[in-house]
Amino acid sequence: MGRVTLLTDFGTADGYAAAMAGVIAAACPGVIVDHASHDVAPGDIPGAALALARYAWLYPPGTVHVVVVDPGVGTDRRAIAARAGDRLFVAPDNGVLTRVLATEPDAVVVELAPPDAHASATFHGRDVFAPAAARLAAGESIDRVGSGVGDPVRLEIPTPDADLEGGEIRGVVVEVDRFGNLVSNVPADAARALPGDGPLHVFIEQDPVGPVRGTYGDVEDGGLVAVVGSLDTVEVSVRNGSAADRLGAGRGARVTVRRSGPPAPG
Amino acid sequence: MGRVTLLTDFGTADGYAAAMAGVIAAACPGVIVDHASHDVAPGDIPGAALALARYAWLYPPGTVHVVVVDPGVGTDRRAIAARAGDRLFVAPDNGVLTRVLATEPDAVVVELAPPDAHASATFHGRDVFAPAAARLAAGESIDRVGSGVGDPVRLEIPTPDADLEGGEIRGVVVEVDRFGNLVSNVPADAARALPGDGPLHVFIEQDPVGPVRGTYGDVEDGGLVAVVGSLDTVEVSVRNGSAADRLGAGRGARVTVRRSGPPAPG
Amino acid sequence: MGRVTLLTDFGTADGYAAAMAGVIAAACPGVIVDHASHDVAPGDIPGAALALARYAWLYPPGTVHVVVVDPGVGTDRRAIAARAGDRLFVAPDNGVLTRVLATEPDAVVVELAPPDAHASATFHGRDVFAPAAARLAAGESIDRVGSGVGDPVRLEIPTPDADLEGGEIRGVVVEVDRFGNLVSNVPADAARALPGDGPLHVFIEQDPVGPVRGTYGDVEDGGLVAVVGSLDTVEVSVRNGSAADRLGAGRGARVTVRRSGPPAPG
Repeated sequence: MGRVTLLTDFGTADGYAAAMAGVIAAACPGVIVDHASHDVAPGDIPGAALALARYAWLYPPGTVHVVVVDPGVGTDRRAIAARAGDRLFVAPDNGVLTRVLATEPDAVVVELAPPDAHASATFHGRDVFAPAAARLAAGESIDRVGSGVGDPVRLEIPTPDADLEGGEIRGVVVEVDRFGNLVSNVPADAARALPGDGPLHVFIEQDPVGPVRGTYGDVEDGGLVAVVGSLDTVEVSVRNGSAADRLGAGRGARVTVRRSGPPAPG
Repeated sequence: MGRVTLLTDFGTADGYAAAMAGVIAAACPGVIVDHASHDVAPGDIPGAALALARYAWLYPPGTVHVVVVDPGVGTDRRAIAARAGDRLFVAPDNGVLTRVLATEPDAVVVELAPPDAHASATFHGRDVFAPAAARLAAGESIDRVGSGVGDPVRLEIPTPDADLEGGEIRGVVVEVDRFGNLVSNVPADAARALPGDGPLHVFIEQDPVGPVRGTYGDVEDGGLVAVVGSLDTVEVSVRNGSAADRLGAGRGARVTVRRSGPPAPG
Repeated sequence: MGRVTLLTDFGTADGYAAAMAGVIAAACPGVIVDHASHDVAPGDIPGAALALARYAWLYPPGTVHVVVVDPGVGTDRRAIAARAGDRLFVAPDNGVLTRVLATEPDAVVVELAPPDAHASATFHGRDVFAPAAARLAAGESIDRVGSGVGDPVRLEIPTPDADLEGGEIRGVVVEVDRFGNLVSNVPADAARALPGDGPLHVFIEQDPVGPVRGTYGDVEDGGLVAVVGSLDTVEVSVRNGSAADRLGAGRGARVTVRRSGPPAPG
């Protein structure tokens, strides 16, 4: 038994994703392989790291989460496995686990043995990551799947900058989701802790979005609105539309939250 | 155990769909979560209602079908669960269950309790619908998951108009599928019951399609053809091509079926 | 129990793919249905044949692989099932099993009984292929699911042409994958067996790609590179880019491998 999720940028049409599922199913009878997504944008490590953080802890303890977004396949980048918060992870050591490791200081990270001579140079999903996932799903200890590394690669995750004197927090858009929502890295808690007690106003670059509201329903259809999203950070949306399109903004755009409205931040 | 299907407009790349699967897996060990689709066009409630009707009854009794196409998230729209024909359903109360409820007069529909304070304002898939689905999949009674409502929201499902005197039935295209087939709401049985015994001719708006044939193979490759589709309604196709592109027609286009060929309907 | 994979060109949004999964789940309690892919390009039989070959043998013995890429639905093409290498297959008899049958000379192929009067003319995935798959997954013998055919349709699979005198092998691109890699049909073993011992040079049509390298990491980011891919054939890639875009090449493009570099082949 056991449950394994797969997150890749392979698409499905070529059969690469099913090849991984097949390797795991063959090694681990009865395992449930859940195709979390194969539609990560090719090579988008930060996007995969965020998607993984959305679901990793929601699966039951013992779940093995495999991520293969691996622009470095065929270089000397390491392959790693991790145990964190009772979930298991298998991935290239390229930072894609940064967010899940950041929340689990007790995580154990090991380096997988280098691929043997039969492994392909191009498809470690099938020949390296899936076999390791199957061993973990079958209950093998992480110490037997690899040997200790203390320093997995970490992405530089942008952190918001609280300027309490100026009464504002400055962050960035970390994701544009399928609906065009602009997901920021500004924690709702930190925003609420800003001195004063007026409403919290949000800006994307120079564009005023208005106050943080309770929910989409607080504006008209097509209206621009800031809310607290499902990661408990500030998000900017257009109700039943795309904030990314409306504002011409994407990942990395500046997000400012402060207790007073316009004029726009400098 | 148990089996849960998910139908959403989330895409998969952001991790929202996997978050729902994870919540269900954690609450219901051994459950099989089947990603029916996450590619519904954003906000397309009628499209989701039709897709659901295609597969809901084919799954075994006890299956829990979850639909989250929810442009009203964050308004006061209700969240509902239903038991109909020995299958269970969880969805926003926005009409997406209209087609499955229409065929089951004995359906029981309940309103889910409003989300608690910890639920996000934007992601009821994770915080409202998946938990309810997990409880149903674990065998909890629908009466315990919510309390009775008698009047779920119903979409206005277009019904065909039989003009027996004029010897024709007029309906509309209710779906354009991936192949460009124009699926109508004209039941094959009703068309066959038209008075007379000549062949049944089909028109899309003013365009004559020709008689209803037995199968695609009755025309040449690239030929326009009317057949009885898998919903037992009249469909218009181009063999190995797209009828939607050929005729420039989409959802809502008029479909006329009658015993005589051109001239076109007025 | 048992495991069934589905490979189709249906997309998922219309509910056709879930309809197949539902039929199988209803007939075969506890079965795991794995959506290998529903994103095959519409009608792309050679593409589906290659994708299937990538994963078919990796699944455990007893797995039932269903392929419904079926531009001939509604013609008199047969529907078949096969047992090969301890895996089972269900598909239209249009060549989509060519690659898996080619590697298993002892394969048994049977013709499914024609659809009964209740089967739709347009959706054999639901009414013919899924029911047959469910019977096989439930353990029924292939002899009971259909009756023997000796001559399933075979695609003409392009074979490379070894010109040992001229010291080169000429093949073609058989697939462009999601990353823009040009997968050829030139086996790495055959290329290595070319007389001489200089490096193996690769050309796509007239364009020199350079020598076959060990791995992507042997060139700079954005560099064009030939490697041995996961099918053990020569592939041409751009590291973290698209070779298909760079070279303007697609399926069918000529691939030449020889022991000497430019000038280009005539």
